[in-house]
Amino acid sequence: MTAQTTTTAYAYAAPAPKAPLERIAVERRALGEHDVLIDIKYAGICHSDIHTVRAEWGEGGTFPVVPGHEIAGVVAEVGPGVTRYAAGDRVGVGCFVDSCRECENCRGGLQQYCTGATGMIGTYAATGRDGKPTQGGYSQHIVVDENYVLRIPDALPLDAAAPLLCAGVTTYSPLAHWQAGPGRKVAVVGLGGLGHMAVKIAHAMGAEVTVLSQSLRKKDDGLRLGADHYHATSDPATFEALAGSFDLILNTVSADLDLGSYLGLLKTDGTLVQLGVPERPQEVGAFPLISGRRSYAGSLIGGIPETQEMLDFCAAHGIAADIELIRAEQVNEAYERVLASDVRYRFVIDAATI
Amino acid sequence: MTAQTTTTAYAYAAPAPKAPLERIAVERRALGEHDVLIDIKYAGICHSDIHTVRAEWGEGGTFPVVPGHEIAGVVAEVGPGVTRYAAGDRVGVGCFVDSCRECENCRGGLQQYCTGATGMIGTYAATGRDGKPTQGGYSQHIVVDENYVLRIPDALPLDAAAPLLCAGVTTYSPLAHWQAGPGRKVAVVGLGGLGHMAVKIAHAMGAEVTVLSQSLRKKDDGLRLGADHYHATSDPATFEALAGSFDLILNTVSADLDLGSYLGLLKTDGTLVQLGVPERPQEVGAFPLISGRRSYAGSLIGGIPETQEMLDFCAAHGIAADIELIRAEQVNEAYERVLASDVRYRFVIDAATI
Repeated sequence: MTAQTTTTAYAYAAPAPKAPLERIAVERRALGEHDVLIDIKYAGICHSDIHTVRAEWGEGGTFPVVPGHEIAGVVAEVGPGVTRYAAGDRVGVGCFVDSCRECENCRGGLQQYCTGATGMIGTYAATGRDGKPTQGGYSQHIVVDENYVLRIPDALPLDAAAPLLCAGVTTYSPLAHWQAGPGRKVAVVGLGGLGHMAVKIAHAMGAEVTVLSQSLRKKDDGLRLGADHYHATSDPATFEALAGSFDLILNTVSADLDLGSYLGLLKTDGTLVQLGVPERPQEVGAFPLISGRRSYAGSLIGGIPETQEMLDFCAAHGIAADIELIRAEQVNEAYERVLASDVRYRFVIDAATI
Repeated sequence: MTAQTTTTAYAYAAPAPKAPLERIAVERRALGEHDVLIDIKYAGICHSDIHTVRAEWGEGGTFPVVPGHEIAGVVAEVGPGVTRYAAGDRVGVGCFVDSCRECENCRGGLQQYCTGATGMIGTYAATGRDGKPTQGGYSQHIVVDENYVLRIPDALPLDAAAPLLCAGVTTYSPLAHWQAGPGRKVAVVGLGGLGHMAVKIAHAMGAEVTVLSQSLRKKDDGLRLGADHYHATSDPATFEALAGSFDLILNTVSADLDLGSYLGLLKTDGTLVQLGVPERPQEVGAFPLISGRRSYAGSLIGGIPETQEMLDFCAAHGIAADIELIRAEQVNEAYERVLASDVRYRFVIDAATI
């Protein structure tokens, strides 16, 4: 391969909305001044990948779409102006590969909330600066501007690190922003890909962690991952027993939720943070907000500096995702299992099998 | 009158749910060790008074109900253990007259969020420590524990100060909590009793203030009260032009609101604070929250220390309510005008006419 020309990479893509994924070839752009060519080693499967290829979030960009925004790999080659990375470096790419770089949020390292003309440019199903569709991480290679590449510390295995690039930072960011830590009680709603990372990270931050899951089916897992308590939300007694308990609740579930019940679990000044996007708007009554100065908030992944901070934090605390490694041709089957919540806790594609 | 026995006070009360208010006599308790007997001079009319006597908030306590929680008066007599007030002091009473005094919130001066067994004990339509219904400020006298009495600074006229005890602190508290001040852009939805105080206070705090009102009918007033900008929410262009503009939006309106549109007006990390309680739950989509780490929050009046802080702040900045003084017998007519939004901006009952 050479930096002077485009690179052909094999990838798994949805050729059309709702179609099963299949192996195709994509062209990666020739290395620009600040570009990094990454040999992808692993790519996590995020529920968003499924939403996108099934066009459940409306127009999902131009098909075919190569999903994948939990990317871990090794730098193969760098553009002449690249200063931060060199061939052989262990790196990651998350949910976006560019942004306007000029708005207040981009300048402040909150690229995920870019308010510029481009907005945050997604790792796939978006339009890059070159006007071409971006294609994600279920692929052998990717070319990304060095400013949107993360360093994966040596202490983290690349396969289990991949999901940190989305599931990790999506939970780390609100935990950091709303100050999970010693003396703070944090609840995590749902023990899936996001939830299991939220439990590990909140525990490592020193918070007292409670899992609120539909049933007690995964209770042993939850406690092993670092939760101090585990309650079933199918039991109405849970909401009575835990009323006014939490400083922070992270809702990792995209299903409809009785927000009033969950807001009632918050202490005064507590915050319920929505991480997933339910299909329908949710109803919220003013009373539980007003009666305790509570907040219902949202949070979206994390910016580049915070994503690096999260990776370093995870390395320092020996945290990564619990994964099930699959071969690329198993991806469609894995999607079905994600939809059935039958994964503990993240599928990761071994890119060597692409 | 004597402190040894109960005091008979004439008052305006709703004898039954939805009935017009009429003059009755109520007994005020004999002065306890820490009680203050207040000669009420003025009582503001708050929309909550109307909700309560019309039983629009469900069970409104035992009727008859004497409404009124914006009370300004002069101390007539104090119990033997009272240390903070003496006869002749200018004082006020707000939305509550007691609380558990033991919970974390009470100890922290956030009595409005009391989580103890009593909860916050409302100034009317609640049950006092003596087991009797509390009766509010449309009355000649009231007896209140000194810890729930505020000092009204000499710089504030008593009549225009009365509405500060609810409308003032209801807007001051979130403005202070969410840090309205220089460099911050604050929007106030609705220019009524709460809204006009929000504009005055936010302006005095140094924030850039925008009024968002259904029409431009009160624009001149809004600018006179301290708003820098005034926009009509009936014009869809308002929501386009102001997208992503505000750090803080106070919603003083209890009507149904298209929350998504208003959340879209917030900057990253901005907060929309609900101050009134709409009859129905409101729909909120996750996207506007998540895409800018925005919050939808609630706030309820203020605690005793903050209410005093607000009164001192208003005195220092020469702020009080814009009022229309009425005689007590005009109260039913005033209610109709409040419901028609036909008041600029608060009715205050001259208690001498009771």
